[in-house]
Amino acid sequence: MRITTTELAEICGVSIGTIDRALHNRPGIKSETKEKILKMAKELGYRPHLLARGLKQGKTMTFGVVVFDLANQFFAHLVEEIEERAKDAGYFVYLTITEGNIEEELDYLDSLSSLNVDGIILDPINGGAKFSQYLKSLKTPIVTIGNRVSKAFPFIGVKDRQAIKDAVAFIATKGYQRIVYVSPPLSYKGTENIYSVEERLAGYKEGLKETEMPHKPIVIGEKAYIEKLDTLKLREERTAILCSSDIYALEVLNYLRAKNIAVPDDVGLMGFDDIQVLKYVTPPLSTIAYPIEELGRKSVACLLSQINNEPVAPIELLDHRLIEGASL
Amino acid sequence: MRITTTELAEICGVSIGTIDRALHNRPGIKSETKEKILKMAKELGYRPHLLARGLKQGKTMTFGVVVFDLANQFFAHLVEEIEERAKDAGYFVYLTITEGNIEEELDYLDSLSSLNVDGIILDPINGGAKFSQYLKSLKTPIVTIGNRVSKAFPFIGVKDRQAIKDAVAFIATKGYQRIVYVSPPLSYKGTENIYSVEERLAGYKEGLKETEMPHKPIVIGEKAYIEKLDTLKLREERTAILCSSDIYALEVLNYLRAKNIAVPDDVGLMGFDDIQVLKYVTPPLSTIAYPIEELGRKSVACLLSQINNEPVAPIELLDHRLIEGASL
Repeated sequence: MRITTTELAEICGVSIGTIDRALHNRPGIKSETKEKILKMAKELGYRPHLLARGLKQGKTMTFGVVVFDLANQFFAHLVEEIEERAKDAGYFVYLTITEGNIEEELDYLDSLSSLNVDGIILDPINGGAKFSQYLKSLKTPIVTIGNRVSKAFPFIGVKDRQAIKDAVAFIATKGYQRIVYVSPPLSYKGTENIYSVEERLAGYKEGLKETEMPHKPIVIGEKAYIEKLDTLKLREERTAILCSSDIYALEVLNYLRAKNIAVPDDVGLMGFDDIQVLKYVTPPLSTIAYPIEELGRKSVACLLSQINNEPVAPIELLDHRLIEGASL
Repeated sequence: MRITTTELAEICGVSIGTIDRALHNRPGIKSETKEKILKMAKELGYRPHLLARGLKQGKTMTFGVVVFDLANQFFAHLVEEIEERAKDAGYFVYLTITEGNIEEELDYLDSLSSLNVDGIILDPINGGAKFSQYLKSLKTPIVTIGNRVSKAFPFIGVKDRQAIKDAVAFIATKGYQRIVYVSPPLSYKGTENIYSVEERLAGYKEGLKETEMPHKPIVIGEKAYIEKLDTLKLREERTAILCSSDIYALEVLNYLRAKNIAVPDDVGLMGFDDIQVLKYVTPPLSTIAYPIEELGRKSVACLLSQINNEPVAPIELLDHRLIEGASL
């Protein structure tokens, strides 16, 4: 349904070589011929067929994207942006979803390599030196997001530690007596890559040290964190619950609602990610926002640079900002 | 990081042919050798490499998925399920997102064809006989979801018309005097495939006829539907707003909140899709649920059947059910 260069050549009554010279601004063509061709190309809605061009150059014009899930809107938003930017560059995206299964991640990477992808955007759950070595053996441009693997692979992320420190400082200004921190399980350490989880946790601990709050950190880093909340006598002290992601905060909000504990009157609540669905939630959740679209854009740009043998930054951290809702 | 048949052969001290006979239950192998191999394969965590096997058979082991967006959680959920089911069958998924751009959809289909995908799951925004002809020309197994194209392509969907009729009947039992129906623009008809939009609208009209409600249908099928609500004097009559999808209903909910119009006390509200985020929204939205995972599973199964030259149902409609929230 799209017009090819061959058809364009036929319509203009010139050779494919002439079309090629006109479209790619190469010498060896009369300026009036060139103008005529460009005008016709525009009229006929000709768009360059990047895929065909890439395939000719021995590329597959495909990227692999390896993410945790799509139920977390953060990933859905990110994948949508990656797909859009990849498309702009003529690339197609293989979507692979690990659901946190470290074996599956390895399978996927194996397969993406067999499929000869030109690059991989990876939010890894595997980690460590052996994994880094394995990734190197794939001999494919890779950019890591979310969790770092090693210096060998460019990383684009968020200032996790600083962002949570900022959140703690903000909560402290609101007169809370303690901050409970809800995080994914820390027990995964050693078997899984929990770089981002650890950074955020460190931010919580560092942040607390700088406040006047008397309590030692209360970290709920368990799968059954909701049940753990039951043991905390949330109403006895002026408590805020800081969650390492919005999806946790939303679960906590439902838990509090079910217990008739009012947010923010009885307990404060804060999340992280600023996912799109927050706009429908009451009370509006205070959270940390960062540019998800920029993360997607830069991930694709980083792969393209590697493919073109251009230098890339080993690490790039995006700015965040605190969103004040009405949950604190 | 995964063990190959070659490695397994080396470890067992047998030929690849012998391994093959053991793993695929073929004759020409002693039963004790076979047992030994299967035991070793299990111990070493050998899993069959479906991708490699498929590539040898001249398949690409890839499916293309063409959807509208991922911002609507319905699609995110569906794509996640499709990816999972495809993976189970050894297939990899190209994700392509049209954002409702009919030109881009054609580009994507063109490209997926160039990439030699083994099948395509398509929620089309193009329609009509010419488009059907074009799809046929791709000579690729296709399953359509959401919007039907023609008899030439299997369709898996929801009983859109009946579901909205059910919704109207349910609302009528709640004592409302009128039902306003919010739908995507109907003006797209002719340029876009709005099969599902039309089915749902027909369900609304048919449903209204069966109620005692005196009003003619009020359909807001406009992009600026939120502004249109302003003109309706919502509080004057006992009104329910029925939306053709949850994402519309959530926007309407925010609009009503901003106007201090209480749901359901001042105005009733109902959606369609039962997207995952509804569990965080108050009041709980009444909606129509249908098995999104089954839709994903059946779409993949339908492609696999076509690939294996097995017969497929031309049309398959999944069951829906009405979820009674607290918004009516």
